[in-house]
Amino acid sequence: MKGAVEFRRARREDVPAIVALLAQDAIAVSRESFVAGKDLPDEYWQAFEAIDDAAHDFLAVIDDGGEIVGTLQLTFVRSLSRRGAARAIIESVRVRADLRGQGLGQKFVVWAIDRARSRGCRVVQLTTDKRRTDAHRFYAKLGFAATHEGMKLEL
Amino acid sequence: MKGAVEFRRARREDVPAIVALLAQDAIAVSRESFVAGKDLPDEYWQAFEAIDDAAHDFLAVIDDGGEIVGTLQLTFVRSLSRRGAARAIIESVRVRADLRGQGLGQKFVVWAIDRARSRGCRVVQLTTDKRRTDAHRFYAKLGFAATHEGMKLEL
Repeated sequence: MKGAVEFRRARREDVPAIVALLAQDAIAVSRESFVAGKDLPDEYWQAFEAIDDAAHDFLAVIDDGGEIVGTLQLTFVRSLSRRGAARAIIESVRVRADLRGQGLGQKFVVWAIDRARSRGCRVVQLTTDKRRTDAHRFYAKLGFAATHEGMKLEL
Repeated sequence: MKGAVEFRRARREDVPAIVALLAQDAIAVSRESFVAGKDLPDEYWQAFEAIDDAAHDFLAVIDDGGEIVGTLQLTFVRSLSRRGAARAIIESVRVRADLRGQGLGQKFVVWAIDRARSRGCRVVQLTTDKRRTDAHRFYAKLGFAATHEGMKLEL
């Protein structure tokens, strides 16, 4: 790490670095469209604007002295279940491969959980690919319980 | 069923019936606060107003000739992952116990998936308690794949 690491809300200029992090992932790479040095497809910029405009979405980055080395997204959802509880969903968590295992990702997720708590959420939930056994241990250490099946349907 | 079954957006007057359905569930009952004939706690009404005001939330019911016999909630989320894809999350699916196994729940979820498709979603996802093996089969039949661990942290 370069020194002054900051967890903060993502800005427009961070988008290429965020997409690069998403695309560096072995499981997710085939789902992304990223070529270093080339313009990003418009759909990423459109998605960023939609996320940035939405009060219930919060896209975050780890800013390591100006370099984006991690990302996650929080979505705040209200439902009638659990006495009308607010909950937060964490999605698309990535920390640059060479910075893993140093507690940085853990601090980042704890920071995200604190944001959820300060918004009154009573549950934080996420789904993680069954092949990501490291991720399961990572979240279990933070207190997450793997009580649910995460099911997806591609349209 | 009484006859004219309609899938529709939930209205304020449906809230007690929806909460009754949530509370009738063996796994969820301890998390709800519902006593037939008594006023609902305010937090349910506040949650309903928040959901109803949110363009990204859609609370639905099965209206069986004026009686509410099913519910689910759709939340539309945009993220940078998957080329900025919109996705829909289905939560809090319930069909009254005596009406299960007749294809009604299946039609209801297919209707919800169609709504997600018409909003441009490329993925529909949900988490379901690992103890709900009937639910896993139900969703698998609809094409959902149990590729993820669903992890929760209670705050």
